Amino acid sequence: MSITKGRSVTISDVARTAGVSRAAVSKVIRNAYGVSPAMRERVEAAIGELGYRPSVAARALRGSSYRLGLEIPHVSARFMTQIMEGAKQAVAGTPYQLVLAPAHGPEYDTLESLADGLVDGIIAISPLVDPAWLEDLGRRIPVVMLGRHDHPTGYDTVVGDDIGGTRAIMTHLFELGHRRIAHLTEPEAVTRPGCGTPHAVRLETYRTVMTEAGLADLIQVARREDVPDLARAATAELLASPEPPTAIVAGHDDIAMGVLAEIAATGRHGEIAVTGYDNTDLAAHPLIDLTSVDQQGMEMGAQAATMLLERLQGRTEPRRYRATATLRIRGSSVRSPG
Amino acid sequence: MSITKGRSVTISDVARTAGVSRAAVSKVIRNAYGVSPAMRERVEAAIGELGYRPSVAARALRGSSYRLGLEIPHVSARFMTQIMEGAKQAVAGTPYQLVLAPAHGPEYDTLESLADGLVDGIIAISPLVDPAWLEDLGRRIPVVMLGRHDHPTGYDTVVGDDIGGTRAIMTHLFELGHRRIAHLTEPEAVTRPGCGTPHAVRLETYRTVMTEAGLADLIQVARREDVPDLARAATAELLASPEPPTAIVAGHDDIAMGVLAEIAATGRHGEIAVTGYDNTDLAAHPLIDLTSVDQQGMEMGAQAATMLLERLQGRTEPRRYRATATLRIRGSSVRSPG
Repeated sequence: MSITKGRSVTISDVARTAGVSRAAVSKVIRNAYGVSPAMRERVEAAIGELGYRPSVAARALRGSSYRLGLEIPHVSARFMTQIMEGAKQAVAGTPYQLVLAPAHGPEYDTLESLADGLVDGIIAISPLVDPAWLEDLGRRIPVVMLGRHDHPTGYDTVVGDDIGGTRAIMTHLFELGHRRIAHLTEPEAVTRPGCGTPHAVRLETYRTVMTEAGLADLIQVARREDVPDLARAATAELLASPEPPTAIVAGHDDIAMGVLAEIAATGRHGEIAVTGYDNTDLAAHPLIDLTSVDQQGMEMGAQAATMLLERLQGRTEPRRYRATATLRIRGSSVRSPG
Repeated sequence: MSITKGRSVTISDVARTAGVSRAAVSKVIRNAYGVSPAMRERVEAAIGELGYRPSVAARALRGSSYRLGLEIPHVSARFMTQIMEGAKQAVAGTPYQLVLAPAHGPEYDTLESLADGLVDGIIAISPLVDPAWLEDLGRRIPVVMLGRHDHPTGYDTVVGDDIGGTRAIMTHLFELGHRRIAHLTEPEAVTRPGCGTPHAVRLETYRTVMTEAGLADLIQVARREDVPDLARAATAELLASPEPPTAIVAGHDDIAMGVLAEIAATGRHGEIAVTGYDNTDLAAHPLIDLTSVDQQGMEMGAQAATMLLERLQGRTEPRRYRATATLRIRGSSVRSPG
């Protein structure tokens, strides 16, 4: 979208020439409040001297907001913190500002509100939004979708290696002698087979691996709303069953925290293997010591923001970034007593 | 700001009369994407019938955004999660949407960006922003400031009872026999005496209480950037000192998590009393079991949003909400060995 040939003049060049910060240049370009006349004059002189005409300036003239929106379904989910931090760091130093929109109820409304002049591009984490609707949204505004395994044409995707991560957990538990392994995950709506969410893929992989190992009859799945007390209640039920699991594979670290809480509260800490997913900051805490899968949440957030910035620079062909998954083995995955 | 007399016609009245949801009425008023012609007709008929002219509609005509902005300095701080959830719940069911703006570097830029047409009102958590500047901001847009102990005229404030909360911690530790009590808090910039931040007030109260108890010579203060590894390093230093503390009062739960991590990693879990502040969800976890002060973070977020909505309805005199502080005693505050 730049009209210069060869290496484009950047906002940094303008800042260097004018002897001001990049933020100051950005303020002058978007005509923001708080720019002194002297500052404006210096920056405009540098813009003229360098012939600065990048796409961002072009958009500013058309009324760009210089904001990127991140739609988040659960502000209290710890994995979201990694995504937010990664996106924030990738956007820092650009003229853009990140705004976060917590979804109230249906995510469609939140996404519409963002698209409705609030931001120039959207990072969405909306497991339940219809792909066809998203394709339509992607025609109106640049979109990067986080955590969806489908293959869209009109927007970008950032996903983790949910199959690899789940297989790594299961292999580790088999090696520790576990066979009676239960899976505690999110509700049906986001784990329905084939719906393409990370949690659906993890559940499917769990079932596949158990079946491959000849343990299909020991498959035990519990689904609960992602609230700590419900994870505890589900754990209590699993442990009270006639043939309780010796290992519980939690869909993510927040669920695993509930599992660990229930086990500890009943005086059985260290007796049942527990694994999480996401390797949130808590997993490494010595008092939690949770085996988990590092799926590079910060990097996922940073890549999503970077891909959105690329689209704002003119890229239209869809891209997909798949983060690697690495098992972090810690004390919570104890050996099977059997 | 309403031009009707007596009880104003509300958006709920319009929704009831039109037989549609409040969200649908809001969409029609702000001319949002996705409203069918039939829907628009029904809502406009109801508006005409009832003579609906509330302040929000008036603002919509002037270009209201129907958004409230929450500026947050640290997206990963767990206390922020409480604030965000509380504000989100208070805004749910109104025609407003909450957007969150993580501060990149200087908070002035983030607040300016919010005020610059993005939102109709701002909840700010900016301990380092100049009060005079905030008074100016408050003249341009409704502002609620969270966690500042000053008495502004141009905006509202929501604060906790930092004196009461800290006194409760100290009394509890004295009762357990502790005298050598250290305080680990945030950096100088946000804890400077008299600067009016919650952490400055907690630090000042710690000093006052120690002095009142005749323990002025045992005052020991460590300040670190709020990063888990730095809290661990500070704890290691405190414990390596010639006369190490028997209790560590952390400025908030996130710092306390670092303190607990260092103590556990060196095999001394349960030997040194640790207290936090904010009673985040982790404090009650059986594996953490952290004594902390519940300062009603969700309620603080909800009150801030409610006060902002009141200002948008026309209130101009400043209000202040002070949350109560309640000590939650748990296993981490062990008795002094001495």
